[in-house]
Order: sequence, then C-alpha cells, then structure tokens
Amino acid sequence: MTTDRTAWLVLAALTTPGNREVGSLIRRTGPLQALDQVLHGVGISPQLTAAVDASLKPNDRAPGVVDHVADDMLRRADRLGARIVTPADHEWPPALADLAAISHDHSPDRRDTDPPLCLWLRGPLRLAETLQRSVSVAGVRAMTGYGQYVASDFAYGLAERGWTIVSGGALGVDVTAHRGALAGGGATIAVLACGIDRAYPAANAAVLEHIGADGLLVTEWPPGTQPRQTQFLARNRVIAAATRGTVMIEAGARSGARNTLGYARLLQRAAMVVPGPVNSAMSAGCHIELRQPDTVLVTGVEEIIEEIGSIGQPAPTGQRPDEVLDALQARILDGVQPHRAMPAEQIAATAGVSDRDAKRTLPLLAKLGLVVASPDGYRRSARREQ
Amino acid sequence: MTTDRTAWLVLAALTTPGNREVGSLIRRTGPLQALDQVLHGVGISPQLTAAVDASLKPNDRAPGVVDHVADDMLRRADRLGARIVTPADHEWPPALADLAAISHDHSPDRRDTDPPLCLWLRGPLRLAETLQRSVSVAGVRAMTGYGQYVASDFAYGLAERGWTIVSGGALGVDVTAHRGALAGGGATIAVLACGIDRAYPAANAAVLEHIGADGLLVTEWPPGTQPRQTQFLARNRVIAAATRGTVMIEAGARSGARNTLGYARLLQRAAMVVPGPVNSAMSAGCHIELRQPDTVLVTGVEEIIEEIGSIGQPAPTGQRPDEVLDALQARILDGVQPHRAMPAEQIAATAGVSDRDAKRTLPLLAKLGLVVASPDGYRRSARREQ
Repeated sequence: MTTDRTAWLVLAALTTPGNREVGSLIRRTGPLQALDQVLHGVGISPQLTAAVDASLKPNDRAPGVVDHVADDMLRRADRLGARIVTPADHEWPPALADLAAISHDHSPDRRDTDPPLCLWLRGPLRLAETLQRSVSVAGVRAMTGYGQYVASDFAYGLAERGWTIVSGGALGVDVTAHRGALAGGGATIAVLACGIDRAYPAANAAVLEHIGADGLLVTEWPPGTQPRQTQFLARNRVIAAATRGTVMIEAGARSGARNTLGYARLLQRAAMVVPGPVNSAMSAGCHIELRQPDTVLVTGVEEIIEEIGSIGQPAPTGQRPDEVLDALQARILDGVQPHRAMPAEQIAATAGVSDRDAKRTLPLLAKLGLVVASPDGYRRSARREQ
Repeated sequence: MTTDRTAWLVLAALTTPGNREVGSLIRRTGPLQALDQVLHGVGISPQLTAAVDASLKPNDRAPGVVDHVADDMLRRADRLGARIVTPADHEWPPALADLAAISHDHSPDRRDTDPPLCLWLRGPLRLAETLQRSVSVAGVRAMTGYGQYVASDFAYGLAERGWTIVSGGALGVDVTAHRGALAGGGATIAVLACGIDRAYPAANAAVLEHIGADGLLVTEWPPGTQPRQTQFLARNRVIAAATRGTVMIEAGARSGARNTLGYARLLQRAAMVVPGPVNSAMSAGCHIELRQPDTVLVTGVEEIIEEIGSIGQPAPTGQRPDEVLDALQARILDGVQPHRAMPAEQIAATAGVSDRDAKRTLPLLAKLGLVVASPDGYRRSARREQ
C-alpha cells in the first residue's frame, strides 16, 4: 500500500520543483489523494496532465504499481551514497513550509516557489537539526579581495559560535563561506541546483566532496540533472526558507545573490547586507538593497547573531518541539494547556511527572518561547498555537 | 537710539554662542528688551549677571552708550575685510531658528544649542541665498584614500549641479569637500570654530583664503578666538541647521563628524551616510549611524539630491518668499488669504495683477509649497502660517 512518504516521492518525480499547482493540491487534499488525482488527471490542469503522460504509461498508474517509481529513486540514492527525505520524514525542516505563503506572488521569477516535495541529501548531518541554528551566505562569483575577506571571516566566526553556514556551493562568495565554516569547525550545507551526483562547478569538486563527507549536500533535482539558470533561482528560495536569515556579501546591481535576499525578506527572515566601498561595482547591489526597508546593515558576526537570535531561541517558524526537547521536556509541554494558565503542580499531575521536574523544566520551555509564564502559572504560547 | 541689530550685536558680545538663557529671553521679549534686562541684571541668572559684569562697567550700560560695543565690533569687522550679520538682517538664514526647537534637550553636549545671535562673514556671497540649496559634508581628519575619493567626487558633483557645499574647514574630509566644490565651480562655505581672522588649521591657510575670496567664511566667535573642543561641537549645530542635510563620509566610532549628523537628525534635516569597507576603522562610525533609524545610505550625488530636494523646493524651514520669488510672484502671494481659498481671478484683483499672471503663477506657488490648491481656489499653506 502506498504510504505518504511514497506519495511525496512519486509526486516529486512527476513534477518540477516548486510547482504551485501540485503544492496547493497537496495542501488541500494530502499527498495520497493528490497523487491519485495527478495519476488519473482528475481536477488538474492540461499542462500537468501532459507532463505526467510524458513520464508514466497508463498501466504504471495503478495503486501499488506506481510505488516502483519511488523504489527506483530510493535505490538510485542508495547507489550514490545519498538519501531522500520528504515532509513525511522526521529529518524534514518544517521552516520550508513557509514557502507556501509567498507562492501567491505573481512576479515572473516567483512562479515556482512552493515548498520542495523531497530533498536528496548526502552527508552525515541530520538536516532539520543542522538547520535549527543556520544562516545563509549569498554573494557574487566574481568577488573582490574584500568580499573574500568578509565571507571567510564571517563564516569562520559564525561556525565557531555554532551556527551552520548554508550556501549554494558556487564560485566566489559561496565557496569561500563554505570553506570558512569548515575551517571554523562548524557545519555547512551546500544547496545545489543540479543532481546530487554532479560536482558543479568543477573547480569546487574537492570542497563539495568535503561537504558531502562532513556536512550536507542538498538538492531538489534528481541525479544527472545539469544546472540551469531557472534552477538557480528556484534553489535560492530553499536556501532562504531553510535558514533564519541571509547575509549578502558583495553583489553587483544585477547579481543573483539579490534574489536570495529578496526571498529572505519575503519570508520574513533576517535580510542582512554587508556594505562596501561605494566605488566598487561588486558592492553596488548591496547598497541598492540597503536602501530598501526591512534590510539590516551588518559589519560583523555579533551583529548577525543579534539579528538571527541566540542559542535556544526558536527559528522563525516554530520548530517541532520533539526536535529540540528531550522526552521528559516534551511530556511536560504536552501537559500545558493552550488557553488556560495552570500552576506547575497541576501541569506535573497532567503530564504524569514529578513536581520537581515540572518546576525545573517549565522556565526552560518559557525561554524557548513554547510556553508563557503568568501569575496563574503557565500556558502554551500563542505562536505555538498558530 | 539702539536698534534691533545693535541689540543683537551687543547681546552676542556679552554672551557665549548658543546660550540658552539669552536665546529664550530674546524669544520671549525681543532683542531690545532682552538687552535691557541683561544689562541691568533683571530676571536673569547669577551666572549671566556675572558674565556681563566681567565685560562691562556699570557706566557703559546706559541706553545709547552701550552702542559703542556694537560699533567696535563693526569697525573691527571692517578692518578685517569682514562683515557681521544678525537675525535683523536680510542676509540672515531663517533655517537657523530651528535650533531653538532642539535647545530643550538635556544631554551634555546639547547644552548650548540655541541659534547664533550674530555671524561674522568674509567672502563675496550672500549667506541666506547661498544656503538655500546647500548640503553639509562631515567626516574625519584622518581620512583614507577612499574617503578622499568620495569627498572629492561628491562635492565636485554637487557643486556642478548648483549645490553649495558647507563644511568645517578642517583637515581631511572637510577640506577635500571644500576643494571639490571649488573645482566644480560651485559655492562653498566654511563654518569655523575660531575667529574670522584665524587660519585654522594652518595647513589649510591657502584654501581658507580661497574660500574667503570666492565663497564664504562664517563664524560665531569674535576675531582673535582660538579654536577649542567645545567650540567645534557648538559650530557643528550651525552647519547642520544651516543646510538641508548632512552627508557623513568616513568617521571613526568616536568621530566628531557623528555629532554633526546627530544634529542634522534632531533638526529633521536629511541624515545621509556613505558606507565603506567593514574592515576600515574610518567607516566604523558610518556603519554605526547607518544602523540607526532615520539615516539614509547614499552612494552618489543623485541619491543625495534625491534626499535634499530638487530646484525650487523649499528648504526644511520655509525660506522667506522674497528670497525665491520675483516681484510679481511675491505680489500674487501677498494676495492669497491664509484661511480662506479664493479663485485665481479674485486673487488677481486683490493683488492688482492680471488674471493671466495670477493663473500662471499660482500653480508655481503651489509647487513651492507656499499656497494650497483646493476646489475653491488657492489659500496660503499651513506651513507658511507657522
């Protein structure tokens, strides 16, 4: 029988990343029902019907039979030393769901901004956990010595303080940031615009190998996919959504790095920009952005951390509590009511834990923003209820 | 008999620039009555009484007799090839009155922020007129090559477009901006923190001489006064108030240039800052300021002009209409009522001009913000009535 996970995989195989029609269908009906409609051309557009017809014969669409598509993907990942995660998996980063909220925008390059349906991963780190304290670094390929200094210095400092550096694995600022993070002994994630088996650009093959061995390589595209311009733009939305904020270091007036920063701003992540000399073309895009509202000028690691929050603070989208809490903490949280404050003793009784455990844990949950303290005790925070 | 102008001069001679007590006394009673009270110690503080006692013998305080103080000042100015202007003179810049509004602030370096009582000038330009389209340039003495490039380039470009460059005549950014303005064939004003007869700093003697010959040297302090730290801060308030905005080009974290920018912001003038490399100590103060609200990042002349307005737009404080309008325009403006809108024909009749002239001129006056168009015709704008 087809599972949710299988449905996500097959839907990913049949459509292109970020497809809004499939994304909104899944949100309305769930992945299983969405898959059924997509396979049988029910309530979907002629374009989507044609795309499915091009990749699947009618006989392959029976329930159960279609699972072979997912099986093929998983075997392929296995052969490449990779794995695939879907929204049905524990490792899936919940923050990516925020992409649905900006998917109504009608500007040309905002067409395919729905959340990914699956991600191919290679590397030892757990994706959701590694992204909890993460920041993206964006910038030009043709960086100057100044950009190189800043990217390296900032990534090193952030990594040293326990922040994951997410970037696109490209030449210039991207690879300098990845290297800085590795040098700082921190986690780094390269989100690619090609298949997980492609070392693109070739000049970065060694560092991408290093990231695949110590950090994480991530992509929406199946193995064998070559990078393309539209894929870079689609990839940028994932980088922006997966992290707490984007730091832009050197960008020309027409640089693609501005695209990532734009997504960060749309997603209400911290949009941070490093200034530079006004007579440097590689800072012109930075200064254009700094003249926009909701953009913060940053000159160092401390100012970046100030924007993206300190240890333990929840990410912009509430992370699943079971990902940051241990079993006891999660149990106590479950005992807290959403709308009515209760004293710690009553929460302890509800959760079936000792008063002492409840009294010790509730202030921590309050600090995490999961519960709110009041004179009458504790209740769930409003943000968690959304 | 003592005139207003004489009273301003004597009050200036007896007190220190920016003195809040004298400024508010003058605003309450007018300069003649204020002078009388100051001379006879009526309703003034013991400090002010002591200061006056130190400079004037009792016999010198009789009406008419005290005028010799003003006469001495005027003769002294004359000998130095200078002149003195007071708020009673046509050449006085009305924008300086805005300083009274920030004079209530109690922070330490905001003590003496009242408007000047007189200004010593040297140079061929008319002060109020030259300040109509003016911008101040602030920055460090110890500028880098980058600061030199920007100060020179911006001042040249602004001067070329008809903007007066106002600065402090100091080493570094100040003198580079003055030189840039002179090179661009524009007007430049150096506001000094010493007497009009002092070439300070000595290294700038030649360019200060040039400014005194082609532009304007301006100071509140009488001849012979040596520059002092507190005078630099007091001088900065005049630079900020006299101009439509301040552009800060290179400043260390503790630079005095930040003081001028702070005054500009308090006075609701445009507070503009040029970014630089984050690893340059001489841009650190710029970046601190750019992280404050109400600060605009500027990278070039066009962006500066965008902030301080285009030709003919009124300065932050309403300029006297007789300074921007020709005789016909001023006459038509006089025919417009403050509280009641009237059709152009009626305004023409009141002003004694032709309907055609009124209909052609009223839209211009509206564009200048001097009158407001409504379905019933035109009335004076509220700003003019203040």
